[in-house]
Amino acid sequence: MRVRTLGPARITSPMEPLLGARRTSEHYAHENDRVLLDDTVAGVAARGVAADQLPGMEPCGPRRKIFFDPSKTRAAIVTCGGLCPGLNDVIAGLVRSLTHHYRVRRVVGIRNGYQGFCASYGHDVVELTPQSVRDIATDGGTVLGTSRGPQDPEEIVDCLERLHVNILFVVGGDGSMRGAMEVARVIAERNLLISVVGVPKTIDNDIPYIDQSFGFQTAFGLASDSIRAAQVEAKSTANGVGLVKLMGRHSGFIASYAALARSGADVVLIPEVPFALDGENGVLAHLRRRVEERGHAVAVVAEGAGQDLVGDPHAGHDASGNTRLQDIGPYLRRRIADHFAGAGIDTSIRYIDPSYAIRSVPANPYDSVYCVRLSQAAVHAAMSGRTEMVVGRYRRRFVHIPMKTAVSRRNQVDPHGDLWLAVLEATGQPVRFG
Amino acid sequence: MRVRTLGPARITSPMEPLLGARRTSEHYAHENDRVLLDDTVAGVAARGVAADQLPGMEPCGPRRKIFFDPSKTRAAIVTCGGLCPGLNDVIAGLVRSLTHHYRVRRVVGIRNGYQGFCASYGHDVVELTPQSVRDIATDGGTVLGTSRGPQDPEEIVDCLERLHVNILFVVGGDGSMRGAMEVARVIAERNLLISVVGVPKTIDNDIPYIDQSFGFQTAFGLASDSIRAAQVEAKSTANGVGLVKLMGRHSGFIASYAALARSGADVVLIPEVPFALDGENGVLAHLRRRVEERGHAVAVVAEGAGQDLVGDPHAGHDASGNTRLQDIGPYLRRRIADHFAGAGIDTSIRYIDPSYAIRSVPANPYDSVYCVRLSQAAVHAAMSGRTEMVVGRYRRRFVHIPMKTAVSRRNQVDPHGDLWLAVLEATGQPVRFG
Amino acid sequence: MRVRTLGPARITSPMEPLLGARRTSEHYAHENDRVLLDDTVAGVAARGVAADQLPGMEPCGPRRKIFFDPSKTRAAIVTCGGLCPGLNDVIAGLVRSLTHHYRVRRVVGIRNGYQGFCASYGHDVVELTPQSVRDIATDGGTVLGTSRGPQDPEEIVDCLERLHVNILFVVGGDGSMRGAMEVARVIAERNLLISVVGVPKTIDNDIPYIDQSFGFQTAFGLASDSIRAAQVEAKSTANGVGLVKLMGRHSGFIASYAALARSGADVVLIPEVPFALDGENGVLAHLRRRVEERGHAVAVVAEGAGQDLVGDPHAGHDASGNTRLQDIGPYLRRRIADHFAGAGIDTSIRYIDPSYAIRSVPANPYDSVYCVRLSQAAVHAAMSGRTEMVVGRYRRRFVHIPMKTAVSRRNQVDPHGDLWLAVLEATGQPVRFG
Amino acid sequence: MRVRTLGPARITSPMEPLLGARRTSEHYAHENDRVLLDDTVAGVAARGVAADQLPGMEPCGPRRKIFFDPSKTRAAIVTCGGLCPGLNDVIAGLVRSLTHHYRVRRVVGIRNGYQGFCASYGHDVVELTPQSVRDIATDGGTVLGTSRGPQDPEEIVDCLERLHVNILFVVGGDGSMRGAMEVARVIAERNLLISVVGVPKTIDNDIPYIDQSFGFQTAFGLASDSIRAAQVEAKSTANGVGLVKLMGRHSGFIASYAALARSGADVVLIPEVPFALDGENGVLAHLRRRVEERGHAVAVVAEGAGQDLVGDPHAGHDASGNTRLQDIGPYLRRRIADHFAGAGIDTSIRYIDPSYAIRSVPANPYDSVYCVRLSQAAVHAAMSGRTEMVVGRYRRRFVHIPMKTAVSRRNQVDPHGDLWLAVLEATGQPVRFG
Repeated sequence: MRVRTLGPARITSPMEPLLGARRTSEHYAHENDRVLLDDTVAGVAARGVAADQLPGMEPCGPRRKIFFDPSKTRAAIVTCGGLCPGLNDVIAGLVRSLTHHYRVRRVVGIRNGYQGFCASYGHDVVELTPQSVRDIATDGGTVLGTSRGPQDPEEIVDCLERLHVNILFVVGGDGSMRGAMEVARVIAERNLLISVVGVPKTIDNDIPYIDQSFGFQTAFGLASDSIRAAQVEAKSTANGVGLVKLMGRHSGFIASYAALARSGADVVLIPEVPFALDGENGVLAHLRRRVEERGHAVAVVAEGAGQDLVGDPHAGHDASGNTRLQDIGPYLRRRIADHFAGAGIDTSIRYIDPSYAIRSVPANPYDSVYCVRLSQAAVHAAMSGRTEMVVGRYRRRFVHIPMKTAVSRRNQVDPHGDLWLAVLEATGQPVRFG
Repeated sequence: MRVRTLGPARITSPMEPLLGARRTSEHYAHENDRVLLDDTVAGVAARGVAADQLPGMEPCGPRRKIFFDPSKTRAAIVTCGGLCPGLNDVIAGLVRSLTHHYRVRRVVGIRNGYQGFCASYGHDVVELTPQSVRDIATDGGTVLGTSRGPQDPEEIVDCLERLHVNILFVVGGDGSMRGAMEVARVIAERNLLISVVGVPKTIDNDIPYIDQSFGFQTAFGLASDSIRAAQVEAKSTANGVGLVKLMGRHSGFIASYAALARSGADVVLIPEVPFALDGENGVLAHLRRRVEERGHAVAVVAEGAGQDLVGDPHAGHDASGNTRLQDIGPYLRRRIADHFAGAGIDTSIRYIDPSYAIRSVPANPYDSVYCVRLSQAAVHAAMSGRTEMVVGRYRRRFVHIPMKTAVSRRNQVDPHGDLWLAVLEATGQPVRFG
Repeated sequence: MRVRTLGPARITSPMEPLLGARRTSEHYAHENDRVLLDDTVAGVAARGVAADQLPGMEPCGPRRKIFFDPSKTRAAIVTCGGLCPGLNDVIAGLVRSLTHHYRVRRVVGIRNGYQGFCASYGHDVVELTPQSVRDIATDGGTVLGTSRGPQDPEEIVDCLERLHVNILFVVGGDGSMRGAMEVARVIAERNLLISVVGVPKTIDNDIPYIDQSFGFQTAFGLASDSIRAAQVEAKSTANGVGLVKLMGRHSGFIASYAALARSGADVVLIPEVPFALDGENGVLAHLRRRVEERGHAVAVVAEGAGQDLVGDPHAGHDASGNTRLQDIGPYLRRRIADHFAGAGIDTSIRYIDPSYAIRSVPANPYDSVYCVRLSQAAVHAAMSGRTEMVVGRYRRRFVHIPMKTAVSRRNQVDPHGDLWLAVLEATGQPVRFG
Repeated sequence: MRVRTLGPARITSPMEPLLGARRTSEHYAHENDRVLLDDTVAGVAARGVAADQLPGMEPCGPRRKIFFDPSKTRAAIVTCGGLCPGLNDVIAGLVRSLTHHYRVRRVVGIRNGYQGFCASYGHDVVELTPQSVRDIATDGGTVLGTSRGPQDPEEIVDCLERLHVNILFVVGGDGSMRGAMEVARVIAERNLLISVVGVPKTIDNDIPYIDQSFGFQTAFGLASDSIRAAQVEAKSTANGVGLVKLMGRHSGFIASYAALARSGADVVLIPEVPFALDGENGVLAHLRRRVEERGHAVAVVAEGAGQDLVGDPHAGHDASGNTRLQDIGPYLRRRIADHFAGAGIDTSIRYIDPSYAIRSVPANPYDSVYCVRLSQAAVHAAMSGRTEMVVGRYRRRFVHIPMKTAVSRRNQVDPHGDLWLAVLEATGQPVRFG
């Protein structure tokens, strides 16, 4: 996985004198090292190639030689797409690392996503300093604002040129990264030396080659509160059913982790595992049996689950280019109600959809630390001249990933892996519904 | 406000020897004292009666002479209606006070509200001991379960007789208290010596003569998180609007307090204050102006607000006898969207309805303490032979209130009082919309 | 309880036109009304005077006629003494009410308590605007800084004159209020028209005539977490003892409420109730018996409790003039260890002293609302020309209290009242130790 | 890293029929696979061996063939050493996995650590069922109790034999794992078929080959609250200094992560990085300069840091065999006070030591999930006949680690790694003090 660079790095890192003569070297990433993609003996043996030919990823970290002269560097930051806990931590981390570590003097924030590059929207840019970002991480959301959808990459590069920006940090999801690749393409066509570095954002944890996306832990932690609420409601009524819809358009990570964090869910439904509602082996009958046995039941459903049941192939796309999902939550609520009514059971169904309440909170301490380290890694990568890449943590190592790779597919819950097995154990639901 | 008693209290309280000879007296409530209903000089003067003729309420507290012989007393507890933070604290408090203070030997819990008295539902009763209730307050909900709606009072009293219950504690809302009055009526008709004491529950804080209902602080504290979430979402988008629907069928206390706890709401709409949506002085134009001035706006609406706008006089009632409300939240969301579209403003509206997530949490420390003290007051009242009454805190004094009085009207936000004035100051909204 | 005024209020409140013609009057406090000090029939009857002669307190609230011309008014805010949750809410509330409600144009913040008035400390003043205080309430502490101890009142008034201040808001404890009275004395001697209004601050809840001081609920809520921690630690070891020292120099409110909020304490020791450690009826033997019966025990002690046991009458005073207390916590820990060792019981004692961790948190939603309303009341009082007074809530009414009265004595837990009785019931400790 | 087994696994896993014919295989761990110890190209190339000879660790997970016949298996669980968030989650996870997954019928809990095996302490064992552990994870601590220090392994194995235990799960730190190795040695000497499997516990995160120990995230999250409190206190006073002592006897992970989670610390001191207090390049002068520049400063110190400064080589050991540390906290507080006094700066130092308050909380959602998965991994390992090993997560894979390896050394913060570099960047402190 080769990452593009703008050119050879020839400038001595300003950190070098800071660290002092003797111990300098250990702080730097080795330019030729790679983190193996497959870290199992079986995987390595299967390749049958010399060790240094094994596929791997560049480790993140400061380089002794950098590409950009800090005193002349201008950086821009833009946040795109839906909210996610930790956006402000990333912004603050980028600004601090650029300023304190590299002494970059000018960092600007672009307002409201890619819209902020386009004159027609009339948003002005924001000067970002360590002082102005000092306390922003205590708030959720993004101080820069955000928007969905792409904008004309030519117009974006015009704006970058006008602002004399050398480094553009894009914090956003896979749609935004595709937009960033378009921007990098135009930059290359114009022979500009502008680095485009991404910090991938997805509350659903669906970025490939990345252990966990920032904000994910905060998100599933809060999501587990909704499961608890649904369980309390369900237990407080005779034959009560709690139904919780959680985020997860294509991946059931939030639903799976939230359910594991609370031992109360009787069923977890995720996009990766198809299921039938009807029949004696269907979800509805399973819930009914649980109510009959225990007096109550709780179902957790990811928003992207069961789209074959509710879906409309002509539903279209939203501004970010995501397929519009049909709402599985109310559909499921109705089907449960009908099923119980048909079985002559007087139930009450409590439906909880906490979406916005989860996206907008500040990052928890773990995610804060993660965002700080991610943003430091992004700054090091950019200063070294890397471009068209994102930073991430792969098997606990901070690594560089080409943008093309990061948007090549989605990370999903492996229906045969230990995470899903843990969910099956915790809920006691069958391997297959229907 | 005279409270009914079953008869003269002739038994010496078991606390008396415990407290020791000298200091006993101060711990007891004085049988003849009253807390004044109106505690202003103007109010008292206006009466023009002798001081001891002023209207007042009996203070709560242990009495030196009690009515029931603890060694022969059996108590029952039932929880009715929707969930509210603190129900388990009240149950635990009743059990502890009965057992530790009075040495009552048998306390039973009735399952799933008034249903639990009726054979047809097949719920069994639960023995309640200090051991079995030790940790229940760390969970939300009610360990006894609950249900909506009344049951036949004759069947309830049959059950009380069968269980040899002398004291029935009803924890519930005004519908449940009306049910309890029916039960007390049947008890009187049968010449039984069974005390019926209520602990009034309403998350909306709408019980008259009561400072604040238990769970209310927990509720509005959590509700304020939703306002914060809406504000974060609204600020993160160009022309963003956050809309939060909070509990409050007839009273806007949760909406008002939650808005004061967070300085982010631009409009608060409550049932007590009518408003117009349209016109230059309407809510919609106000929100639009705020968005134009500040780039975003947040509206908070109590579920019972604006029923004249959406309401259907023939909407009917739910199982508890409450008028079915039309849903103001989605209606308002649609109206806001239409208004902004009409004005040519590209907005995005985030709608948050946290209801179940709020009802089901455990009580916060304040409400826990309040529940403990309320339940102790209820036990003292019951042991002294009071019946057909509820306990509450009036101007910081725990008092006895006749059930009839407690259901006579609703506590509402005074549109001319300092609470609403504080909301007007905090939001900057006009005194009158339209 | 008469409150001093600087002179007749002759200026029409700017709120009057705002509220609109018809409903104006209800929003204003009636100048002649009073809240009764004693609101019991017994209390009123005992007076034997005409109703309008009964002792009472002026209600807070906006007046139709005010004393200061808003367009020419300058206000200053100073925060003094130890930290307390809610200080920033009060600062923000004062600034907002002055600016939005009365259109006062200049508000300054004095840095680091009374030190900020004195040139020798070199602190500059801070301009306070709604914009600059917008987000401060999400942080604990005080943005103005604080300090202990008085400063020369002549120098303070010199500074007020130099700054053209008409209204001084002092947020502080009883020492600070005594300092404020000195300032008011000098103001009167110089015939200046400067109002001095206090917002009383005490995390210990020991201000007389005030239901609860701001920050108290936040404080005891957090304090209850320490009791939980001590209980968990004690239960996890054979014969474990948890010991928690909580704030409360002269009043055991935090210890009492925190213990009631958690049903885990076996003993609560407060300054108001003397106790013996030794002997079969002493605290140590009681704890030992609990450990023998239940395997563990938890003791909660207010910092001012048992000073007769550890106290040194010559211990002196701190900078605020408070008597230096001897540290009961480590003393008790040592005594418990010795007692258990003497009894041949192998114990382990976990000692928790959460003090600073509690003082420095942001206010919880309840306290936030309370601070907003208190600060609005303080602004109304000051604008109407009141001086040398504090605002507070007495039996749920916001009232004016002369400073002299507010520092005349301390509010304490009544050993014969229902709060302490509730603690005795909850812990099962004897009425008297020793 | 070979892990011992008791013998060949010949029994078909009860999960096999459950999973259904077709997809079974993917759920099982491959017996011959290994996770590479070094996952860098440089590391692999340096070995110069065939791929299948590279050092690696066995992956965790269910095996198709198991060693113990579930219907005849008895398991015991013991928790040892200091408290750590997540102990109850591990206990509950073990019980659930044994019961639901393998249908093991009897699980007993040993009370109060290794003491519970010894008749002289008189603790009885506890039956553990899914029902009895259902709600324990909402509480901190351990329902089984704990104790420090080893007990006679012969007596422990006597007890295991008496109880007919086949599998012993030891949840504890490195001292406890050394004890478990002694137990395994005696088991081997007696030719018994008892598996001993460890779940390593250390709030300090200092176990080698393990990404993060359970409870660590909960712990540093809470620890960061103390840093915030110290910062608030320090900022609220002129020249204020906040000093926070955090856990970390040999490893500075909690201090480092907590400091990164909050951007307020000016200095972080950890055991891995020696430092000088005195001199112009010492810690004290650094803090003084920060106070002079910013008006306040915050220092975070791990309990094991600077032991060369305070240490007493003859300090001895505690019951768990840990070297008794001298208390760096009060020592540092005194040295800071002296230094500032010497420099003529009037400061106030707030010292916070949150230790017990952190250890005793329930696990946060992330740690809950981690504990569930760890305990499932431990059950799978034990049922397959593995012994004298612990489970852990290494580079995001759950793996088996021989006990000998797990106690061979400590995991420490790498002074040249990216974590510490991130701390240096965040605090701005020099690479070397003195």
